[in-house]
Amino acid sequence: MTSLAALKSAAAVSERDMANAIRALAMDSVQKANSGHPGMPMGMADVATVLFGRFINIDPTAPDWPDRDRFVLSAGHGSMLQYALHHLLGYEDMPIEELQRFRQLGSRTAGHPEHGHALGIETTTGPLGQGISTAVGMALAERMLAARYGADLVDHHTYVIAGDGCLQEGISHEAIDLAGHLKLSRLIVFWDDNAISIDGPTSLSTSMDQPARFKAAGWRVQSVDGHDMEAVAAAIEAARRSDRPSLIACRTVIGKGAPNLGGSEKTHGAPLGDAEIAATRQNIGWAHAPFEVPDEILSAWREIAERGRAARRAWERRLAASPAREDFERALSGKLPDAVFEALDAFRREHVEKATKVATRKASEMALAAINGATELTVGGSADLTHSNLTITKGMDRIAPDDYAGRYIHYGIREHGMAAAMNGIALHGGFVPYGGTFLCFADYARGAMRLSALMNQRVVYVMTHDSIGLGEDGPTHQPIEHLAMLRATPNLNVFRPADIIETAECWELALRSETRPSVLVLSRQNLPMLRQAHGHENRSGRGAYVLREPSTHRAVTLIATGSEVEIAVAAAERLEAEHGIAAAIVSMPCWELFEEQDADYRKSVLGSAPRVAVEAAARLGWDRWIGDTGAFVGMTGFGASAPAPDLYKHFGITPEAVAAAALKLII
Amino acid sequence: MTSLAALKSAAAVSERDMANAIRALAMDSVQKANSGHPGMPMGMADVATVLFGRFINIDPTAPDWPDRDRFVLSAGHGSMLQYALHHLLGYEDMPIEELQRFRQLGSRTAGHPEHGHALGIETTTGPLGQGISTAVGMALAERMLAARYGADLVDHHTYVIAGDGCLQEGISHEAIDLAGHLKLSRLIVFWDDNAISIDGPTSLSTSMDQPARFKAAGWRVQSVDGHDMEAVAAAIEAARRSDRPSLIACRTVIGKGAPNLGGSEKTHGAPLGDAEIAATRQNIGWAHAPFEVPDEILSAWREIAERGRAARRAWERRLAASPAREDFERALSGKLPDAVFEALDAFRREHVEKATKVATRKASEMALAAINGATELTVGGSADLTHSNLTITKGMDRIAPDDYAGRYIHYGIREHGMAAAMNGIALHGGFVPYGGTFLCFADYARGAMRLSALMNQRVVYVMTHDSIGLGEDGPTHQPIEHLAMLRATPNLNVFRPADIIETAECWELALRSETRPSVLVLSRQNLPMLRQAHGHENRSGRGAYVLREPSTHRAVTLIATGSEVEIAVAAAERLEAEHGIAAAIVSMPCWELFEEQDADYRKSVLGSAPRVAVEAAARLGWDRWIGDTGAFVGMTGFGASAPAPDLYKHFGITPEAVAAAALKLII
Repeated sequence: MTSLAALKSAAAVSERDMANAIRALAMDSVQKANSGHPGMPMGMADVATVLFGRFINIDPTAPDWPDRDRFVLSAGHGSMLQYALHHLLGYEDMPIEELQRFRQLGSRTAGHPEHGHALGIETTTGPLGQGISTAVGMALAERMLAARYGADLVDHHTYVIAGDGCLQEGISHEAIDLAGHLKLSRLIVFWDDNAISIDGPTSLSTSMDQPARFKAAGWRVQSVDGHDMEAVAAAIEAARRSDRPSLIACRTVIGKGAPNLGGSEKTHGAPLGDAEIAATRQNIGWAHAPFEVPDEILSAWREIAERGRAARRAWERRLAASPAREDFERALSGKLPDAVFEALDAFRREHVEKATKVATRKASEMALAAINGATELTVGGSADLTHSNLTITKGMDRIAPDDYAGRYIHYGIREHGMAAAMNGIALHGGFVPYGGTFLCFADYARGAMRLSALMNQRVVYVMTHDSIGLGEDGPTHQPIEHLAMLRATPNLNVFRPADIIETAECWELALRSETRPSVLVLSRQNLPMLRQAHGHENRSGRGAYVLREPSTHRAVTLIATGSEVEIAVAAAERLEAEHGIAAAIVSMPCWELFEEQDADYRKSVLGSAPRVAVEAAARLGWDRWIGDTGAFVGMTGFGASAPAPDLYKHFGITPEAVAAAALKLII
Repeated sequence: MTSLAALKSAAAVSERDMANAIRALAMDSVQKANSGHPGMPMGMADVATVLFGRFINIDPTAPDWPDRDRFVLSAGHGSMLQYALHHLLGYEDMPIEELQRFRQLGSRTAGHPEHGHALGIETTTGPLGQGISTAVGMALAERMLAARYGADLVDHHTYVIAGDGCLQEGISHEAIDLAGHLKLSRLIVFWDDNAISIDGPTSLSTSMDQPARFKAAGWRVQSVDGHDMEAVAAAIEAARRSDRPSLIACRTVIGKGAPNLGGSEKTHGAPLGDAEIAATRQNIGWAHAPFEVPDEILSAWREIAERGRAARRAWERRLAASPAREDFERALSGKLPDAVFEALDAFRREHVEKATKVATRKASEMALAAINGATELTVGGSADLTHSNLTITKGMDRIAPDDYAGRYIHYGIREHGMAAAMNGIALHGGFVPYGGTFLCFADYARGAMRLSALMNQRVVYVMTHDSIGLGEDGPTHQPIEHLAMLRATPNLNVFRPADIIETAECWELALRSETRPSVLVLSRQNLPMLRQAHGHENRSGRGAYVLREPSTHRAVTLIATGSEVEIAVAAAERLEAEHGIAAAIVSMPCWELFEEQDADYRKSVLGSAPRVAVEAAARLGWDRWIGDTGAFVGMTGFGASAPAPDLYKHFGITPEAVAAAALKLII
């Protein structure tokens, strides 16, 4: 499609023409799909053309080149902006036919940009505020990787286009504060300031002085006319020289180019309609048929890609010559060294022998010491609960403004921002992020946790204080429904280990799970070591297993997770001692992995005897495992404030209650 | 305990002594409990003393007096500040014995302040940022009620103490922006600026210029030394005269008074220890034994309560003389007029006859028109999705800055802030709030939704676009795990109506549910009317019911909710026509209500034939209803971007698939 003649004439193509190509592709694709959002791509076409045309270094033929600039379309509903750009730049998976199949089953052009679904989509966006917050993690990872490998190998920017929605969402506050604090100068955010949201003018709901707000967070702020390309370019130049993250507030007209609807919320989320599209063609001087881009304009866009390709090749030469090459490539591969898993195996052996009795949050800290000692890829952090989550280990220096050589991030009281930043760190590559908060505050992080799962990212959530076992802090801090919420989430492994051994096993599984995030659900209170011997097999790896098989035929099977396995064991002892009843104990640290086992294994674990499940949480979901004849001992409402042992008694989650439930089933 | 002599000498008591009483009670209670947070109450004791001593109008003997000032301890971990105040002010449920039982089972003094658990706790706090955001709803409700009933009856302030955690959380951004926009001048927030969070100095994680940030949001900002009582008083005076919400940044020392630990994060969340407590007594000149407050100091505090009592009595006289009395009392009672329910009954009759086929979101809009026409207590809104959620009805004027006479709130792109504001509106009294967003973005609102449930508040969440049926927007917008997440939440009714009739029924149930929040889960796509005749009985009220009973003995029972009931009906017809198999259809709009029915009813609905459930969502939880021999047709992973009919086919949620699953069970 790109002829030599076209390449030569590309110089004559104006940036305005190039921007109009985006406008035309966006409005035509949305019209054809009869679904989508033309207003934003048309409004931001000029900014995007300057950004990509003059600044961004990406190579469509090597979309994962590590030192590429990152582009994040935080206002993900404007996906046609990104697809139009990708088509124009020549991504091989984005021929014009894909734009013609916008929002259709099996196309690359999903309603919102989805990481992994089309080349070059750096992160999934759509839920507002996620993109900008994920970008903070990317920009931080860039600085951290640069601290390790130097500017020769790591020297790129993260560019974000965000809309009013992104900036109204609470998560943006967490992200902006963190980025400003850490002086992430390679982060440049364009605010599509079109003064329109879905309900109408933004003045319906906000009076925020956004520039002042960003300045308060330590950002450099510039304001420009988003249709004045030289002004946009000058602002980007200045932003690239800043020692702080930058906001470029771009005053734009939503649906720019549409003569009747431009500037109205009507262009936001619906096709313009044939008449307005025709009028727009006239208005912007775009005489070409739908989905037709003249060769010279296409060539001008492809030249941009050439610039990126040249940059990529120069970088590859630097990498080839670098003494750090091997380390760098290993880090970027995400492969953890065998030493990590050997250390965990040794750890398990040691603590089986010692029968170490600790809280699983403490066990996690101890396992992390082994892990972090064996690799530098792991990067820890907590949402201001470091010494409760026990997420820091010896020798981990903190990441600080202008000092990115450390491995520990004080995320602040920002669960949602932390989760999104971890997504960004994982997506960027070079690190394996984990971060802590209380399980109950998974509520605050839900939006970003879901994206970890949807994007297949290895992000490890360390969530402690996992039940009424946290005691006095009371019902606002005691998770009830959170296990069900997380277990119901697709592509997320929820681990609730019962003792120090399972904790180490679950950590291993989380680290090995390269395309699935994990949640480690950990106790505040001490728990005994329950395993009877060391074996190299990671028993938690099958999701559930028989921890104790009685010497005689099972009369009942007691199933439990985490801190309640101890209770099940005590119940079994009671049943045996007082009633001569043989109870098997099944520990079930990970439902998802158990669900993936073959039917024979599952049957061998669950057995055919009646089952009692015990978990200090909501019942929802447990019927799958206990069946029609089973019983559940757990929570039926919110918790309360009291010392943990009192609460377990008060809510009837005790060996006595489990034994009684078992007896009721048998007799 | 308060003698006349003590009352007389109270004038001689200094405010510093009064503040030290709070300090002593806080440190002693935490020490006795061996659990809790002394740092914040000690740091904010001076501010609280000035605020309560000179300004707040509350009456401990009438804690629910409608025109009282509202006090919200957003930094809820500092609960001992509130309990100490309540004891000193003379709340009857807060004798000294309760402070001695801080954080013990059954005490009033829960770890964090819990609404309904002790008198005068205006809202439950602990999850950071919730208090300040709920207070925005209270302050808005005050203005709205004043617009209806005048300053004679409604004229009070909402005071908030917030910490660094509250202001770092994203929800605070949503709340602050909304409050500034709406010019909620009766809202006064004290920021406990002690520069300490759990991990250490706040400089570990933030560089935010909070005063500048609040100014950017349109707030009046003052900064004072939080231990300079005259400065605090002057700032409150000025704030009360402001035409905008106010932040008073109070520079404080955490654990103020503790000579060695004061100013350190060590005072945040742990007892000071006997030695430091003794040193503190010495340091602040508090010679009294633990839990002993001298009569003159107690009397000084009780005089404050007298001021509130006098204000309350004056208000009662105004109310008695007011022509609006009856209306006002009805509004505050929260009782909806019978006309609402009569209108809904007529609505159902009409649409059964017409067999109206609309999306349930549209049905909700139509039902709302009937409801809002019959009462003025309902106040609607949406997180910038008004014309998608269909939450506005004819004649609803919008709430605007300086104009609070309307009934519709443009909450902006702020799901979490909206949910918290609705909690505040409900807690304040005088209104029944409902608000809309997409079901998927329940993720963003989780923190506050949980508190609706924990606080027994009638808040109605209108959550549309409830499955892959939303189509092209794709997996970021398609709920999968959200029904399980909400159903697992205690004290929350989750309604997923199947047609226009069930939608009206579920609205009725939500409005009648005075101590439980509701979520209405509604379709984007059209759904047929399925009911065969009108009856006065609200069939959704039993949670599930037999929608179609075959004329011959059931061979299979098909259970479904919402948009999948139509699919189940089609499957039943197919089974009958093609295989002569008699299938019953159970519609199950509300699991929670079904769970509450007696066993006989449940059995009669579920039947003894094999069961197939169909729901375009995660399976988790469904095994409870389908049993060991049942089958589930639904989602097994995330959705995709495509037109809805294509997605239903793609994911195999079709009459064919349901019929096939049924056949497999039977044959």
